[in-house]
Amino acid sequence: MIHQQTLTLQTKGRGTIEITAEVERIVAASGVRTGLCNVFIRHTSASLIVCENADPSVRQDLERFAARLAPDGDPLFRHTMEGPDDMPAHVRSILTQTAITIPIADGSPAFGTWQGVFVWEHRTHPHRRSVVVTVMGEA
Amino acid sequence: MIHQQTLTLQTKGRGTIEITAEVERIVAASGVRTGLCNVFIRHTSASLIVCENADPSVRQDLERFAARLAPDGDPLFRHTMEGPDDMPAHVRSILTQTAITIPIADGSPAFGTWQGVFVWEHRTHPHRRSVVVTVMGEA
Amino acid sequence: MIHQQTLTLQTKGRGTIEITAEVERIVAASGVRTGLCNVFIRHTSASLIVCENADPSVRQDLERFAARLAPDGDPLFRHTMEGPDDMPAHVRSILTQTAITIPIADGSPAFGTWQGVFVWEHRTHPHRRSVVVTVMGEA
Repeated sequence: MIHQQTLTLQTKGRGTIEITAEVERIVAASGVRTGLCNVFIRHTSASLIVCENADPSVRQDLERFAARLAPDGDPLFRHTMEGPDDMPAHVRSILTQTAITIPIADGSPAFGTWQGVFVWEHRTHPHRRSVVVTVMGEA
Repeated sequence: MIHQQTLTLQTKGRGTIEITAEVERIVAASGVRTGLCNVFIRHTSASLIVCENADPSVRQDLERFAARLAPDGDPLFRHTMEGPDDMPAHVRSILTQTAITIPIADGSPAFGTWQGVFVWEHRTHPHRRSVVVTVMGEA
Repeated sequence: MIHQQTLTLQTKGRGTIEITAEVERIVAASGVRTGLCNVFIRHTSASLIVCENADPSVRQDLERFAARLAPDGDPLFRHTMEGPDDMPAHVRSILTQTAITIPIADGSPAFGTWQGVFVWEHRTHPHRRSVVVTVMGEA
């Protein structure tokens, strides 16, 4: 069995948006009880992470860490035509995930207690983002 | 064909534990000859890497690199209630892998000669960690 | 349906090689219309990224970023027997991807407009690299 669905998200600029509930809903709707769920973001300046979803300060600290590692306007970068946040966004994307494949057990993504899946917008301005969720497995 | 199994590991605190042999055993037991093997860790302060498995000094250097990049007690971090190693553990986790999907060819994971898959514990204290292995494919 | 094929590439030393067209060709040949395409590199000193494929200056900046993060000959590293670029290559590999799983929709990898998949050679000398592409899904 295969089920595929595209999520469209409007981001508010840099920051994380949790999509765990949407992914769980797609898995439930698929009827797959055991299998795999692939989440894929169709962009190179926004990415995916699996992260603690209890305390928002964790994601705020990740943001601070990313800003230190690849600051906006970093003089290292030459690809600057699309703005001071463009190359930092590409760097953050390749250091995190474009695709994450999660096991399905008993009809749900087998996340640990504290795990959630997030879209991480890396551009400072709002963007429309597209995420493909593909579920494969057995009923 | 789908086969799913959970590995439970007791870590000794920060460091890597190779699970290549366990993953190979699960693939062999599944009877799948061609397909995919997904390895997923159900935590946000321990992660997975595929790394050279010949010389342990490679993983020691990775540990030194991670400690330089996100040191324990880094004043950048505000989420410090769970200890000085907690945010560094989340950072190390999002920069490495929560999930890795490995091809299966001729009944085995198609690792290169020097590749092994490792659980990387990022907390300084020992933890019990859970890893889900899902095998899908054809006999 | 499962289809598996190995790509062999000769790199020219450090830098990226786009393999999007090769991956698209393998997906087309498989006959799969909806499913997943796993790309896996069988090495620990070269890796995979999904990155903007329009402007080559993006990948040049990624190279500059990686060189700042883990420079060749970094005195931090003790595993130096295989050369000053060996540990930096392992670090770059674990911070990017060994495996990427891409959804297939309407018979093609569902890449976004600006996305391409690249092999990133991290050693300074040319190497022969092997990439396994596995396609699973329905016609």
